[in-house]
Amino acid sequence: MSKENKDFVKEVTSREDDYSQWYLDVILKTEMVDYAPVKGCMVIRPYGYNLWENMQARLDKRIKDTGHKNAYFPLFIPESLLQKEAEHVEGFAPEVAWVTQGGSEKLAEKLVVRPTSETIICSMYARWIQSWRDLPVLINQWCNVVRWEKTTRPFLRTSEFLWQEGHTAHRTEEEAQEETLKMLEVYRDFVENDLAIPVIRGRKTDREKFAGALKTYTIEALMGDGRALQAGTSHNLGQHFAKVFDITFLDQDDQLKYVWQASWGVSTRLIGAIIMVHGDDRGLKFPPVVAPVQVVIVPIMPKKAKEQVLDKAGELLDKHKDKFRLEIDERDYSPGWKFNEWEMRGVPLRLEIGPKDLEKGQVVLVRRDTGEKLFVKEEDLEDNLDTILEDIQKNMFQKALDFREENTSCCNDYQEFQNIIAEKKGLIKANWCGREDCEEKVKDQTKATIRCIPLEGEGKGEGNCICCGQEAREKVYFGRAY
Amino acid sequence: MSKENKDFVKEVTSREDDYSQWYLDVILKTEMVDYAPVKGCMVIRPYGYNLWENMQARLDKRIKDTGHKNAYFPLFIPESLLQKEAEHVEGFAPEVAWVTQGGSEKLAEKLVVRPTSETIICSMYARWIQSWRDLPVLINQWCNVVRWEKTTRPFLRTSEFLWQEGHTAHRTEEEAQEETLKMLEVYRDFVENDLAIPVIRGRKTDREKFAGALKTYTIEALMGDGRALQAGTSHNLGQHFAKVFDITFLDQDDQLKYVWQASWGVSTRLIGAIIMVHGDDRGLKFPPVVAPVQVVIVPIMPKKAKEQVLDKAGELLDKHKDKFRLEIDERDYSPGWKFNEWEMRGVPLRLEIGPKDLEKGQVVLVRRDTGEKLFVKEEDLEDNLDTILEDIQKNMFQKALDFREENTSCCNDYQEFQNIIAEKKGLIKANWCGREDCEEKVKDQTKATIRCIPLEGEGKGEGNCICCGQEAREKVYFGRAY
Repeated sequence: MSKENKDFVKEVTSREDDYSQWYLDVILKTEMVDYAPVKGCMVIRPYGYNLWENMQARLDKRIKDTGHKNAYFPLFIPESLLQKEAEHVEGFAPEVAWVTQGGSEKLAEKLVVRPTSETIICSMYARWIQSWRDLPVLINQWCNVVRWEKTTRPFLRTSEFLWQEGHTAHRTEEEAQEETLKMLEVYRDFVENDLAIPVIRGRKTDREKFAGALKTYTIEALMGDGRALQAGTSHNLGQHFAKVFDITFLDQDDQLKYVWQASWGVSTRLIGAIIMVHGDDRGLKFPPVVAPVQVVIVPIMPKKAKEQVLDKAGELLDKHKDKFRLEIDERDYSPGWKFNEWEMRGVPLRLEIGPKDLEKGQVVLVRRDTGEKLFVKEEDLEDNLDTILEDIQKNMFQKALDFREENTSCCNDYQEFQNIIAEKKGLIKANWCGREDCEEKVKDQTKATIRCIPLEGEGKGEGNCICCGQEAREKVYFGRAY
Repeated sequence: MSKENKDFVKEVTSREDDYSQWYLDVILKTEMVDYAPVKGCMVIRPYGYNLWENMQARLDKRIKDTGHKNAYFPLFIPESLLQKEAEHVEGFAPEVAWVTQGGSEKLAEKLVVRPTSETIICSMYARWIQSWRDLPVLINQWCNVVRWEKTTRPFLRTSEFLWQEGHTAHRTEEEAQEETLKMLEVYRDFVENDLAIPVIRGRKTDREKFAGALKTYTIEALMGDGRALQAGTSHNLGQHFAKVFDITFLDQDDQLKYVWQASWGVSTRLIGAIIMVHGDDRGLKFPPVVAPVQVVIVPIMPKKAKEQVLDKAGELLDKHKDKFRLEIDERDYSPGWKFNEWEMRGVPLRLEIGPKDLEKGQVVLVRRDTGEKLFVKEEDLEDNLDTILEDIQKNMFQKALDFREENTSCCNDYQEFQNIIAEKKGLIKANWCGREDCEEKVKDQTKATIRCIPLEGEGKGEGNCICCGQEAREKVYFGRAY
């Protein structure tokens, strides 16, 4: 590594020295995000927002392909609506922003800035749904939500964030459960295949479930520092909201019944997951499928050949821009400086082109994930871009999966459990008796929570609870979480 | 018209009887929108939101093609930021929603829910912009904004609405002005070509300009009831905000200078314009370019042939769905009922197919704009859809343009002016001395405002001011506006 390159990378704290600082260095320096002049809020800068747009487009297609339609519900929720569902208000009231004044007028009823939209949407469904013919209702919304957080960190936990929230109503309990799991699977597919992040699908314990849900399902991911992150949730709401909002329908048997509901959401938090799962000490590393720039063209321009090289770079851009997201870096910096900057910005592939390459009719490709350098004939470029980007995507997923497996332990001894959590972090698969007492005790003593009861293994506890030693009901994943 | 059809249409108030009621009947009955349980807010239902998504996609492409990138800034603005620019706070403070409490805590500084984002964005630009190399900054944001309105009407004026707001910073005054007019032209192109709404580009008078702008440009459209609607605005902000937010840059000549800025926006209000410009007593009429459904397939199904007809309908859908937005209506209603419903919902083309058509290898197409019925061979369908949808788009624009021209008067006599505004409505082109006195007097006496000083005719007043009779400076458009 040249001196110049070392200096450049020095500006980013190494992950080992201080993971939190590394995270902040990387996202601020790459202009993904900035702090806003409002406590706990973030500005998503164009480079970060472009990533979100690519993610949105891919997930939105899946949401529509499964029969859902987008709509938009109001930002404000009257206090009385929020308060209808007892668990829901208990869960959310402590962390909402209150609008108390409109213009110069004090409001007769305070308004909540939506922390999630179950209540306002249910109030509309009660009006829209009359008959079994109106079911299912399959609606999704892309919007901003606000939760008044005490400790914040860009993307991971902010007072305002962007997300999508699906809200559905069904005729039967089975349909609602089917929807809940269907959308969990959509999330898994999206996060694993597009974001290259392996996830564990599972059910949350009652302690960790969504306020007002019957059952909450989650996809859990492991970050680069060994901490877990809840990457998306899908809730079976049962008839909890239907009953308090009086969402009834006349069924085929002429009986008036309550609908069964589901809701599900993922947020800009996933951007944080991408950064923490794939990033390294050189900076970001984006999966090609959603990378804002997939290929950066860095022209190598000795004075004499400048025009010729730039012409070729422009030609390559024009030729491939319909199929790939390319950018030319024509700035007045040294190639080495640019290489480092684009590595830091996480671009999957660098395309170098200089006078010698021009002579040989070739370009040089350098992979961000492996550092591998390839010489490719110009006429073979499209095929190579296709193949290599696909390979990078796969390789990134595999690497993240290997990391998770290396950092997942099975453990039957509570002392060992405590040691692992304290030293190694990662996930621990352990038996649990099913009682909230033990769950809380483990959390108090180790800061580890039950991330989920894995979908495939529900009710399959064997042996003794890691905490109390009594008979186990479930085998669950524990971990310290963001 | 059959009896059944007449009854159906009866449910929508005729425009002549009560234009406002017609508007509400149509948007509520077609499930474009619904009232929310929060005063002045609306729920944009899937059918309405789908229209917005199509509009967004088309405009977003134009915004990006002109070099802008999307980003996201916080919903909340600290009171102190809003208050920095004197005219701006005076214009917006009376109509903002205030957040005074977060969780259980009273906030030390009140927060405004953004009515527009100049102030928060400028506070960030002050941090991001250092050198002439950082310019121009070309950023756009799609988001929700809130203005505490007293009198509301879905899409046209609501307390919360969706929009895009572009915010740019430039090195020179000329560049900022160029940007302002460039985006006005982008809006004209989008509104005329995609929404089929003819607009007049012009400058707002100082009285009507954006609070804090140097100059505001507008595109003005004429609605079906003869009232004008401001359909989009583009502001040259000069250095007003740069000076109070201290957005400076080191120029090439080593001098520290203030940037020059522009901002521009259009909103869900444009949905209201589409409805009012194109709708008729049968309901909505959507321009094909942005219509949620471009072609509705209505199968004519006598019992015996049901399966056969549905198979063919499905086949047609599959064959053409990549290129056009089609939907099959398989519901258990009579064809006549469906025809009326889809006409009310504004679908540009109806495709009927029944057993006889199957035999002849043809389909029947019926245009929403002219009612014309065409018999088309199955193998010619794609070409015909292309041609006819394009023709509908053109025809709708031409019809709207003819209407505007028929309803635009030139007038030099104030008595006549008053009569026209009272009886005929529409736009009046008249001379104006340029003084705010006269502008206000006309407004007080007739409710007509100066919609704009047309772009092509600035400073081209001839003769005498319509109001005071003194020498005219400008020839302007007057009209009663939404």
